[in-house]
Amino acid sequence: MANEKIPYKIYLDENELPKQWYNVRADMKNKPAPLLNPGTLEPMTFDELRPVFCDDLVAQELDDTTPYFDIPQEIQEFYKMYRPSPLVRAYCLEKALDTPAKIYYKFEGNNTSGSHKLNSAIAQAYYAKKQGLKGVTTETGAGQWGTALSMACSYFGLDCKVYMVKVSYEQKPFRREVMRTYGASVTPSPSETTQVGRKILAEHPGTTGSLGCAISEAVEAATTQEGYRYVLGSVLSQVLLHQSVIGLETKAALDKYGIKPDMIIGCAGGGSNLGGLIAPFAGQMLRGEADYRIIAVEPASCPSLTRGRFAYDFCDTGMVCPLAKMYTLGSGFIPSPNHAGGLRYHGMSSVVSQLYHDKYIEAVSVEQTAVFDAATKFARVEGILPAPESSHAIKVAMDEALKCRETGEEKTIVFGLTGTGYFDMVAYEKYNDGVMSDYIPTDEDLAAGFAGLPKVDK
Amino acid sequence: MANEKIPYKIYLDENELPKQWYNVRADMKNKPAPLLNPGTLEPMTFDELRPVFCDDLVAQELDDTTPYFDIPQEIQEFYKMYRPSPLVRAYCLEKALDTPAKIYYKFEGNNTSGSHKLNSAIAQAYYAKKQGLKGVTTETGAGQWGTALSMACSYFGLDCKVYMVKVSYEQKPFRREVMRTYGASVTPSPSETTQVGRKILAEHPGTTGSLGCAISEAVEAATTQEGYRYVLGSVLSQVLLHQSVIGLETKAALDKYGIKPDMIIGCAGGGSNLGGLIAPFAGQMLRGEADYRIIAVEPASCPSLTRGRFAYDFCDTGMVCPLAKMYTLGSGFIPSPNHAGGLRYHGMSSVVSQLYHDKYIEAVSVEQTAVFDAATKFARVEGILPAPESSHAIKVAMDEALKCRETGEEKTIVFGLTGTGYFDMVAYEKYNDGVMSDYIPTDEDLAAGFAGLPKVDK
Repeated sequence: MANEKIPYKIYLDENELPKQWYNVRADMKNKPAPLLNPGTLEPMTFDELRPVFCDDLVAQELDDTTPYFDIPQEIQEFYKMYRPSPLVRAYCLEKALDTPAKIYYKFEGNNTSGSHKLNSAIAQAYYAKKQGLKGVTTETGAGQWGTALSMACSYFGLDCKVYMVKVSYEQKPFRREVMRTYGASVTPSPSETTQVGRKILAEHPGTTGSLGCAISEAVEAATTQEGYRYVLGSVLSQVLLHQSVIGLETKAALDKYGIKPDMIIGCAGGGSNLGGLIAPFAGQMLRGEADYRIIAVEPASCPSLTRGRFAYDFCDTGMVCPLAKMYTLGSGFIPSPNHAGGLRYHGMSSVVSQLYHDKYIEAVSVEQTAVFDAATKFARVEGILPAPESSHAIKVAMDEALKCRETGEEKTIVFGLTGTGYFDMVAYEKYNDGVMSDYIPTDEDLAAGFAGLPKVDK
Repeated sequence: MANEKIPYKIYLDENELPKQWYNVRADMKNKPAPLLNPGTLEPMTFDELRPVFCDDLVAQELDDTTPYFDIPQEIQEFYKMYRPSPLVRAYCLEKALDTPAKIYYKFEGNNTSGSHKLNSAIAQAYYAKKQGLKGVTTETGAGQWGTALSMACSYFGLDCKVYMVKVSYEQKPFRREVMRTYGASVTPSPSETTQVGRKILAEHPGTTGSLGCAISEAVEAATTQEGYRYVLGSVLSQVLLHQSVIGLETKAALDKYGIKPDMIIGCAGGGSNLGGLIAPFAGQMLRGEADYRIIAVEPASCPSLTRGRFAYDFCDTGMVCPLAKMYTLGSGFIPSPNHAGGLRYHGMSSVVSQLYHDKYIEAVSVEQTAVFDAATKFARVEGILPAPESSHAIKVAMDEALKCRETGEEKTIVFGLTGTGYFDMVAYEKYNDGVMSDYIPTDEDLAAGFAGLPKVDK
């Protein structure tokens, strides 16, 4: 099919959908460092993780040698309701940029969660159901992950308790209502319902919450109630495993038309989208079968890869979670309040961190006004109103396409469009009104975050 | 392919997309009554309509004999960015309802306008551009049409002036911001920018506006500025012509798998979705080639088909538009404020009205609490959070599927899922909080609306 005209949107047929997830760790010579018990500083064992996570998910988390995991039939069926996601040829964007580059984007926003988060939510809900649990707990910031998990739990008839960062709960009521529509209970965090929440409220009475704090509450709620486990939407290796469906579909669609990308670009917050998108391509690189430029794009206001330390750190503010080795700004780091989009996690997936450390991945940071410039331009020519997170990748894809205009190179650029911005109109309003500002943390800001890193000699 | 397993989602290939729109009027023996000049009560001529609408669109409006219109290449290219829309087999809903019925829905929500409105917006913008105009004006209520038109105008580089019903402008700022992101100017209506707006403001100082009033302002703005024309998102025959792409794709997808529907169900406000969805099926019925049940679903709070009069009426409150013969509640009728969704227009497309009058279409009305019950159930099993408008069709499709459970009949039900409810979370919140109420206008309420009907002896 190599010479066929490439359609605007490449949809795989149902029988071409991935039947297995790909575990990139299996092909990594330098494995991601193990999660550590914060008390003993020894690697977390299956039995230590079981009270927090579902058994099957713990097994996936700890397995860095099995390259493929079968996608259970029930999950494959659910995937068919909103997958395959289209791989879109951005003909209109190419024309608008007057570039010889060929631009493709994998669009994960065509589902009610509005993002790729559903790919892992349904997997985690499935394993919770399989284990006979009553329900799961989680945290959510702006609400994409919480929405995805609510949808997944509703499908399997599981209870879903979401701790939502208080400022989002109050200022973004619409996602909260989407979650409630799917039957989830949504609690503003910090709350009086947990010990850690009460402690944080006592120490910081006026706090509007943070993701790290909501994680602590959700973990406590899961481990202190019979029949519950905690689930997480990013960072963990199990999440990247499930999200590999993005990359596998992307690669299958490219292969179907004989397209070889020169570069693959994704936004990076905790790493779930980027890690999933690049998995099969990074696998080829790790096996010495192909070479690509892989570019992680992060906000200048939360620059864990470009300015963070590669060190063991807490995953949450309450320090109840295991330690993970990752590029981090310190678990106390909170982006400036003028930061509008997501991608505000202080750390980065261990898998992505290790690949970056080993130079399989490049990273760049971009400022948010430039990101919204790119988002608006993209929306006007490609139709889709992108999420602020996704727009980080758009910005760099456009930059690379413009470089091709200068050099005349016909490079093939693939980027991940993780979702839609329909629930981010407050940020767009700021941009439209010309009152959006940028923020780059000073070295002093970062030093304060690094000061909170635990002392781990590994 | 008749015996193949039906996929969850049927996507036509790009080369299977319709290249012509279908004009159902060509096959109607009883043609829809012509638009009348409100002064002379004579049929509006091409020259009388030209100052308001683009020339090509006037030609389409007046043509009730040409069965097919070529879709211009530029529009076909734009359609490829978000079409084909999927025809989805609702396997999960069927299972949840335990019905032998086979349920399909044509999902038009996978684009940033969130609905089918984009199908006609891009056509109208194209013809405006072709005519060398500077821009277009329109009205919008909740904002679906305004968003669609903003996207279309941005694509063709046209100015777009939207008069948005004031209550929506203030209470639904997010759609307003989507329109602004696409470069449209959005004015709350009634406004001081038009004569009719100033008049309405003087007479009703505290008014929060209405669709009919916004139409009057948009028409005045178009006809008093050089290089502008007015465009409308529903009701008109030209709009139904463009929206026939929905039905044509639906029919092609069904035919591809040898599926013959027993009934086709669509929500009906002004008739743009319903008229488009049913066009090729109604055409078969009109030509005596096939028989289907076609069901229009409207809100009990705005029951133009089920309780309206078939009469000439004004299309707008300011009475600046031509008269149309349609099922109507009177141009002064405004649904009760507790009415949450769209579908609040006082009249109904002349094409749909005539087909209903001639018994090709049935109509039912449903109350909004039952509609949100159905919407929530649908969301939880099929994933998609539906627009309140679309949920009217869901409700009746579910009712029909449950009848099949009683009778054991394996009927094939096709319904139109016009869009997503992401910008309707205030209504969902009311429903989730258990404070949503129903409203059925009394005969006295309706009599007041009918009293305003113009006296036309045709």
